[in-house]
Amino acid sequence: MFFASDNTGPVHPKVMEALVRANADYVSSYGADPIMDTVRQQVRDIFEAPQAAIYLVATGTAANSIILATMAKPWETVFCSRVAHIHEDECGCPEFFTGGSKLTLIDEYGGKMAPDALKVAIEAEETRGVHGMQRGPVSITQATERGVIYTLDELRALTDIARSYGMKTHMDGARFTNAMVALGCAPADMTWKAGIDAVSFGGTKNGLMGVEAVILFDPEQAWEFELRRKRSAHLFSKHRYLSAQMQAYLTNDLWIDLAKQANGACARLTSGLKQIPDVGFHYEPDVNMIFAEWSRAKHQALHDAGAQYYVWSGTLEGDDPDEKLTARLVCDWSTSDANTDRFLEVIRA
Amino acid sequence: MFFASDNTGPVHPKVMEALVRANADYVSSYGADPIMDTVRQQVRDIFEAPQAAIYLVATGTAANSIILATMAKPWETVFCSRVAHIHEDECGCPEFFTGGSKLTLIDEYGGKMAPDALKVAIEAEETRGVHGMQRGPVSITQATERGVIYTLDELRALTDIARSYGMKTHMDGARFTNAMVALGCAPADMTWKAGIDAVSFGGTKNGLMGVEAVILFDPEQAWEFELRRKRSAHLFSKHRYLSAQMQAYLTNDLWIDLAKQANGACARLTSGLKQIPDVGFHYEPDVNMIFAEWSRAKHQALHDAGAQYYVWSGTLEGDDPDEKLTARLVCDWSTSDANTDRFLEVIRA
Amino acid sequence: MFFASDNTGPVHPKVMEALVRANADYVSSYGADPIMDTVRQQVRDIFEAPQAAIYLVATGTAANSIILATMAKPWETVFCSRVAHIHEDECGCPEFFTGGSKLTLIDEYGGKMAPDALKVAIEAEETRGVHGMQRGPVSITQATERGVIYTLDELRALTDIARSYGMKTHMDGARFTNAMVALGCAPADMTWKAGIDAVSFGGTKNGLMGVEAVILFDPEQAWEFELRRKRSAHLFSKHRYLSAQMQAYLTNDLWIDLAKQANGACARLTSGLKQIPDVGFHYEPDVNMIFAEWSRAKHQALHDAGAQYYVWSGTLEGDDPDEKLTARLVCDWSTSDANTDRFLEVIRA
Amino acid sequence: MFFASDNTGPVHPKVMEALVRANADYVSSYGADPIMDTVRQQVRDIFEAPQAAIYLVATGTAANSIILATMAKPWETVFCSRVAHIHEDECGCPEFFTGGSKLTLIDEYGGKMAPDALKVAIEAEETRGVHGMQRGPVSITQATERGVIYTLDELRALTDIARSYGMKTHMDGARFTNAMVALGCAPADMTWKAGIDAVSFGGTKNGLMGVEAVILFDPEQAWEFELRRKRSAHLFSKHRYLSAQMQAYLTNDLWIDLAKQANGACARLTSGLKQIPDVGFHYEPDVNMIFAEWSRAKHQALHDAGAQYYVWSGTLEGDDPDEKLTARLVCDWSTSDANTDRFLEVIRA
Repeated sequence: MFFASDNTGPVHPKVMEALVRANADYVSSYGADPIMDTVRQQVRDIFEAPQAAIYLVATGTAANSIILATMAKPWETVFCSRVAHIHEDECGCPEFFTGGSKLTLIDEYGGKMAPDALKVAIEAEETRGVHGMQRGPVSITQATERGVIYTLDELRALTDIARSYGMKTHMDGARFTNAMVALGCAPADMTWKAGIDAVSFGGTKNGLMGVEAVILFDPEQAWEFELRRKRSAHLFSKHRYLSAQMQAYLTNDLWIDLAKQANGACARLTSGLKQIPDVGFHYEPDVNMIFAEWSRAKHQALHDAGAQYYVWSGTLEGDDPDEKLTARLVCDWSTSDANTDRFLEVIRA
Repeated sequence: MFFASDNTGPVHPKVMEALVRANADYVSSYGADPIMDTVRQQVRDIFEAPQAAIYLVATGTAANSIILATMAKPWETVFCSRVAHIHEDECGCPEFFTGGSKLTLIDEYGGKMAPDALKVAIEAEETRGVHGMQRGPVSITQATERGVIYTLDELRALTDIARSYGMKTHMDGARFTNAMVALGCAPADMTWKAGIDAVSFGGTKNGLMGVEAVILFDPEQAWEFELRRKRSAHLFSKHRYLSAQMQAYLTNDLWIDLAKQANGACARLTSGLKQIPDVGFHYEPDVNMIFAEWSRAKHQALHDAGAQYYVWSGTLEGDDPDEKLTARLVCDWSTSDANTDRFLEVIRA
Repeated sequence: MFFASDNTGPVHPKVMEALVRANADYVSSYGADPIMDTVRQQVRDIFEAPQAAIYLVATGTAANSIILATMAKPWETVFCSRVAHIHEDECGCPEFFTGGSKLTLIDEYGGKMAPDALKVAIEAEETRGVHGMQRGPVSITQATERGVIYTLDELRALTDIARSYGMKTHMDGARFTNAMVALGCAPADMTWKAGIDAVSFGGTKNGLMGVEAVILFDPEQAWEFELRRKRSAHLFSKHRYLSAQMQAYLTNDLWIDLAKQANGACARLTSGLKQIPDVGFHYEPDVNMIFAEWSRAKHQALHDAGAQYYVWSGTLEGDDPDEKLTARLVCDWSTSDANTDRFLEVIRA
Repeated sequence: MFFASDNTGPVHPKVMEALVRANADYVSSYGADPIMDTVRQQVRDIFEAPQAAIYLVATGTAANSIILATMAKPWETVFCSRVAHIHEDECGCPEFFTGGSKLTLIDEYGGKMAPDALKVAIEAEETRGVHGMQRGPVSITQATERGVIYTLDELRALTDIARSYGMKTHMDGARFTNAMVALGCAPADMTWKAGIDAVSFGGTKNGLMGVEAVILFDPEQAWEFELRRKRSAHLFSKHRYLSAQMQAYLTNDLWIDLAKQANGACARLTSGLKQIPDVGFHYEPDVNMIFAEWSRAKHQALHDAGAQYYVWSGTLEGDDPDEKLTARLVCDWSTSDANTDRFLEVIRA
């Protein structure tokens, strides 16, 4: 009963096989490996973006923060939701890598910024001339940190606003594919056709060992990105082992299949939980992550049975067995039906 | 005939097996995996350093620069050799991660700083009160970027000087084990017993996919290191795959065997080259890397035969077939005798 | 009718005389001038703080940001009100000088943070281990950017909370003396006796040409402050001209007299405005700054008559003459009764 | 006998008068004062540069470091002489303000870089692709930190090299006018006509209280400069007092007269010293600064007589009365003949 995160499960066997396959011969280092040539072509084809610059890094924080450092000047503020990973979970990496940018936090529901809220926030900045921060890029997480997705229209509404102020947009796509399969759209639909300028295209949470692709649809700042990647120590010498993971990921729709499995597992779990009378959902789960609440007693029972997940608000310790505590449950490609059913069984009991 | 670098060859099969073995079950992320517990114990045992704090990162630049950021204040200067990797090959990462430190460059031979030169350089800093940089740590590369090693006495001479000024010392050990087996000493002899405070303990150039251990013999700044690692995006979610590499590396002396193989291959190559009349050596090779020179004509012949290595000074293009050009040749654990012998055959012809 | 800011008026004549007086002979530079010795003693005496380290800089932003850089690690967040000068008016200088800290913004009324709000904000940080920002210092503006003051009990309530978490406190005292004379307390009461660790003690807005004193009640980080001042280019070679201003300021209670004059001028203006039926006040003015609203028509009349002040919300342009627009009015030591009465006359008309 | 620095003497009376004159009425702050309008026009006229962007800051380090931050990317290295103020005397401010640039140090004589040495240094950088620093601007000090000047041809030789690599040039003109009057050229000759892109135009060492003008001949990055000035806390609220100094400085050739006085005083001192048999000069003094050597005994006699100057190498303490120690002697506009003659008298005795 493992629902702690989509980074606690195993790497998909096809990815491991690709790594083993890549482990032969002598190959140029630092991104000059032939597998990376293939990856570049795959990404460009899949995203219908023949001009895009594509890079690989090993952590989502690196992808997000190096992209933002490329997009935002040190005296600009980045607009993002109040629960964005770049604000809450990167220990200030964006501020560090940009050289001192701020993040302007926008109220959210389900991790989603409303266009009006974004517009108000943008209007409130750059109003004090040289004394205040200037407007920088907008960063949008798709799917959000609350397991919710923006529709294509919603994405477009945000990027239209950004564009109307001459601002660029970044998509934190740590769970890109989970969102994409939920929307049933093409990669281009959810990115450049929706006005997105750069994407952190996640792989680690979807079956890879540790690879995120950076996609810059406008390659103008590609060389700057390369320098920033290098000087933040994120250029790998044995780069082929990043390339190999991404190549396997993008071959024969593996990336899509894995996201469908994760979302499917989550749907099964959601469906089961919804039949339990006193389980309440914070948001309607769109992808592979659930925020739901139930009594402390049930949490305790799950805990005793070995279920692993975050108690998101409140603590197991407490006097009142009926108090509702929120759980965060995350599925990945490897979540088995048995795992899910066992969980439902325990909570139902 | 692959001598371009010790980062172009394959990962050792035992390391790949360890990765495959680690790829099961659900495991806590971000360094809380049980394999990391083992690694910590291994490192402490091997280095006879029960108090040491141990961390893993994926690139040598990350290991070096995060350690230096922990050791040096932004207004301090780091003392290192003029050809140190931290100066020449990290695109300013140390300056970035420290928040603007300088590097004070010290003349070297074979990449080695002489104690007197270090002392003169230290004396020349911190002489202008608040107007000039203050003295920061010393960074020593062992083996050096020229394939040469410091003896234990030479190391101690440098660290004694640093210590006499109240300064700390860092060892860039990208080729740590190559140096250690060449010296025939214990890990502790070459580190804390020789006055070293922190080590970048390299694995990537010695058969791993991409892991360097950071060893802080004084754990006082361990938490600061963790925060700096996180905010520079070098904390891996699926950390077990770093741990697994390091565990395999340190098991049954694999790390030592691999370094011996690399050094042995290099010795065979050196021995063969020395028998060729017009081949000159820049330094007596101590580990797995050679800087040697021979005529352009011979370089051309090697190139035509498919040999891969860096022409370190000069260029293949040129009129004079007799002009001497310098080659850098690097062996790794996987360099075969056949590979070496073929190279010698071509150059001898 | 000049109410635009307390930085638009002239320097007090006694300060100019002190500058002229200081302009003789050869004097050591960079803070080693004998006048600075006097200033140090004056500040220590006045603040009853014999151990305090005292420095002069020329801008309030420098005082605030260098102090904060000394107090906060790059991975810590600074707690301040949502309208703090350090957030709104320093173009990211605190983020820059700290090396990438965040500011955690706390809701305010009249620029004042409520102790409960501070506590909630502190509790919400440092909850994600290494992934999130760590708790840094609290920065309190006294008087606030809205012309309101904290009572001594209110200050103590905030610093008690900070202290209970092991956090330090900074006071942005750009209008320190205006607050102090309004409270009728001693300098020590409003600072270290109230739990404040470091103060930006403003002079520029209170009759000086451009000097702020930095007072570190705990001198432990004094040398770090000096290095940070130097490397941010805020150490003046001809330092005596900063010292001379501060010396004159602190002699014969000039600083107190000037603040009383400014507050008195503002009280006269407040009193007059209160008698005008359709003038509304946002906050009860405590010091030398008013936020009040009246009709666009009256704003227009004032504007036409040459009154200078900020229309803080809304714009003069607009169809509705009855719409209320907010004005910010600031008095300084030089604001004459005639100036004020003329303003009241126009608005009354 | 005051020769310690050109920052220890008084401000010129005309400058003090200008400050007193400026001290009337209410004036817009932060550089919007009408005096600054005049200054802009003065600088543009004097430098024959109608498009130039002009700003004032209060310290030379601020002028240099903010300009360099505007010119150099964080991953670029700035080329300068080994004794440049930006390297030796700014405690890393350029590295801090640029976000981690390096300085590439070039051997010098009299503080001057030779064109060949510059070219070699440039060639040696940007040779390692993404792994090494990229080429940034060249910074030239005129007059140098050793009191020596570049001829116009020598300046042009350096800027031609920079330009041939697409690099920009900065002039640290802390002693700009001393050099200019020594050369007998026009301001434009020594700057943009000689290929200089931006100048730190010093006033503080030449009779002002603390003002340096920044002149950007290409105004393209003017707004960026303004933002960088603000976020490093170098934008003054009561800016008129900077403007007034600079206005007085540029009126009726005061700046030129002051530099001539300083250079003249130094020439008198030089001439006197040359007649003393055992006084040796390190460089032929071009402006207002001398590096010369004589015996410890004579140093001691001067010291006992109250002479103030730096013993640049060696220390007064020592056994050998005949040992030569180097002195640095600096004159400013206020150095009187009596002062100089008294010094000569003592040393001659």
